[in-house]
Amino acid sequence: MKKDKKTSLRIDPKGPTWPSKLEEIDAPPESLWLRGDEDALASSRFVAIVGSRSPTPYGLEQARLFAMSFAAAGVVVVSGLARGIDAAAHAGALDAGGETIAVLGSSVDRPWPRGEVATRVIEEGLLLSEHPLGTDPRPHHFPLRNRLISGLSDAVVVIEAAARSGSLITAHWAADQGRDVFALPGRVDQPMSRGTHKLIREGASLVEDPREVLAELYGAPSTEDPSGEALAEDPQEDDIIMARLSTEDLTVDELVAATGIEVRALLNRLVEGELSGLIARAPGGLYRRVRRRS
Amino acid sequence: MKKDKKTSLRIDPKGPTWPSKLEEIDAPPESLWLRGDEDALASSRFVAIVGSRSPTPYGLEQARLFAMSFAAAGVVVVSGLARGIDAAAHAGALDAGGETIAVLGSSVDRPWPRGEVATRVIEEGLLLSEHPLGTDPRPHHFPLRNRLISGLSDAVVVIEAAARSGSLITAHWAADQGRDVFALPGRVDQPMSRGTHKLIREGASLVEDPREVLAELYGAPSTEDPSGEALAEDPQEDDIIMARLSTEDLTVDELVAATGIEVRALLNRLVEGELSGLIARAPGGLYRRVRRRS
Repeated sequence: MKKDKKTSLRIDPKGPTWPSKLEEIDAPPESLWLRGDEDALASSRFVAIVGSRSPTPYGLEQARLFAMSFAAAGVVVVSGLARGIDAAAHAGALDAGGETIAVLGSSVDRPWPRGEVATRVIEEGLLLSEHPLGTDPRPHHFPLRNRLISGLSDAVVVIEAAARSGSLITAHWAADQGRDVFALPGRVDQPMSRGTHKLIREGASLVEDPREVLAELYGAPSTEDPSGEALAEDPQEDDIIMARLSTEDLTVDELVAATGIEVRALLNRLVEGELSGLIARAPGGLYRRVRRRS
Repeated sequence: MKKDKKTSLRIDPKGPTWPSKLEEIDAPPESLWLRGDEDALASSRFVAIVGSRSPTPYGLEQARLFAMSFAAAGVVVVSGLARGIDAAAHAGALDAGGETIAVLGSSVDRPWPRGEVATRVIEEGLLLSEHPLGTDPRPHHFPLRNRLISGLSDAVVVIEAAARSGSLITAHWAADQGRDVFALPGRVDQPMSRGTHKLIREGASLVEDPREVLAELYGAPSTEDPSGEALAEDPQEDDIIMARLSTEDLTVDELVAATGIEVRALLNRLVEGELSGLIARAPGGLYRRVRRRS
């Protein structure tokens, strides 16, 4: 049974639900306040996706694809609720039926920034903060907030970032905390590539595909279900999905009904189809088969 | 006085004009045939620019910008005459008034591929080959040809390349020969980024800007003229150029006449303007001031 979304829960380092990864970091928080899907913290897989508040369409699309792929592999997507890349990551995780955690620079009863994604994360995800209730966002909260984004996560993926930006602070926290840092390259004539290219020069792993992150952190992910149920890859599923999409665009629910494929397996196939350019997402949550020019 | 472009010259390892850099490599050629601007070999600065025959517009633009920037710094641009990135590199070097060398997989009297750029390199640049006159291009010539592209050069810059491609062979020759390898990143959803990202993962330097290559190889290039004449950077020149371009688009020759700025300095300013997005090239060899959205 879902809790009232307006209530918050305080947890402390000695408690049973305290995130074990926070025991490894310097300057751990004294307490955490939670609001929303508290079960998200029970997962064993967390990856942060962070980036610019002024991303390019390319960055937004990649943030969404990475988040969907992670969610389909049972990974909780951690981010900072900011506009742009953070919001696309939270929304992508929820779109794929996964879990997501927004770590705030204000208290959980005063989430910032407000907006559609914030509302959705309150409803479907988890807000998390070290600030006592009634705390407004302050500029100096955010650099320290970033240590919790990385501290809660197995790795940090930076999608797009300016040369000087909060995302680089998160990446540096991650490196200090011994977390893997992945950075997505982009066009050199885009200022939003400066930060990720800087990270790659400093030793971050260049990443092209979310499956590389999953393989690095958790081994081959697409055939493994973290819930313990085997998730066999069936090459026929692709054919079945593509055949259904050849006559009309369909939503995930319609595809589940039409194909009989289990929803998590279906999402995996859709994400892979998007990554390989065979499937595109159309307005209204519809999936569309991409026609190849002959 | 220019020589007849139809004649070729054979040089040998003991001769005075033999490229000294070829003395450093394994399996040096027994002879070289030259056709065109033989003086190009007298330079002390050579950088190879190579890449895909099926590039994106982004790759073509970057190849041109890198070549123009190198040429403006007195660097001879070495490449393989292929369509796509190679052709854009040769043309960019010549557009900027610089020198360029095309290393062939056929003999210099049978250059391949034919086309506008090949014709132009014969007229204004240097064709170079280890194959005796009368040799047609053969597939097995090109991987070995690539060892000369890197062998003649201080460094190799790979602009765009598929996951398996001749450009990667050139880069591997370069690494074996102790040459620096630079690779331009791009969008992860472009197959033409696969090869350059692979090189970066293998240890090539991620490069965003041709000035990084110049600085790495030759020290600060923009204030140094390899001919020995000091080329002072005058910040007022930018203002003068932008003022002239604010009323109309102009060619390089028109800008020289209108501003009184020396042509090499002007080209330097134009390349920098293009790199920073302040100036764009319009059809007809015109330069245009880019209006910022306010």
